[in-house]
Amino acid sequence: MHAKAFQDYYPDYFALCYGCGRLNEHGLQIKSYWDGDESVCIFEPRPYHIAVPGYVYGGLLASLIDCHGTGSAAAAAYRMENSAMESAPPKRFLTASLHVDYLKPTPLGIPLEVRGKVKEIRGRKIVISETIAADGMVTVRGEVVAVEVPEKMVAALIKNSG
Amino acid sequence: MHAKAFQDYYPDYFALCYGCGRLNEHGLQIKSYWDGDESVCIFEPRPYHIAVPGYVYGGLLASLIDCHGTGSAAAAAYRMENSAMESAPPKRFLTASLHVDYLKPTPLGIPLEVRGKVKEIRGRKIVISETIAADGMVTVRGEVVAVEVPEKMVAALIKNSG
Repeated sequence: MHAKAFQDYYPDYFALCYGCGRLNEHGLQIKSYWDGDESVCIFEPRPYHIAVPGYVYGGLLASLIDCHGTGSAAAAAYRMENSAMESAPPKRFLTASLHVDYLKPTPLGIPLEVRGKVKEIRGRKIVISETIAADGMVTVRGEVVAVEVPEKMVAALIKNSG
Repeated sequence: MHAKAFQDYYPDYFALCYGCGRLNEHGLQIKSYWDGDESVCIFEPRPYHIAVPGYVYGGLLASLIDCHGTGSAAAAAYRMENSAMESAPPKRFLTASLHVDYLKPTPLGIPLEVRGKVKEIRGRKIVISETIAADGMVTVRGEVVAVEVPEKMVAALIKNSG
């Protein structure tokens, strides 16, 4: 049905992240896709991702903003170069800063839609603006400043994973 | 050894939070205490709270900033009134906004020290500035704007928990 998610292209040594790593069996394993110029991720929090009864925990919402943001930054970097997401060396982004505004309580028990768009590109930094909506109502706005992982760090990860 | 943690005073219907609820068996169950004018929380991330091998997941760090911030805001509100943390009605705070700067990667496998201090009090809003340090080195700075839970919401939670 869907194309591969952004996170499905990450090499194994980048696929351990608690938020988005497909190899982290304890983690959230979020999946992000393009939808035109926006990136989208659908995630249904688990019953224990609770703040107070009926509402989603803010730290989980921050985690969705975080990982959907870095994934979107990587996908945008490939798109900007017109290169395929499987091209080597892998482009991956880490979070330099994260901002989240909780506009209203987010109801628990339904799938949430996280949407991102590129706000700004400054050298190796990409700023992604995001929203989280529950049943069509935006409850959270967020922004991630994502920085491309330095090649030295990529090389060290490859070496250590070998 | 220690006095009771801030979170140990929360009534049961406020003790389900994934980040700080003592009754959430899947959650982080963080514990915060006063240390002079600062609040402190020691938390050791689990091995699966990973970003890339050797480093802590940013969403987990954001969750620590979030819950230690709202807990510190509640404790500060009691302290300001010179009232005990078990006084009724319970003072609890929700996060209006969260900002996290990741200054450097945070090493995984050691206890982290989260420290907070009151930056500003504006009516029902309390701003808490925070740091996270690993082995004495500050790796994260954060800020939480915490808002006191409206009495109507407290009343609804009490009613639903009955």
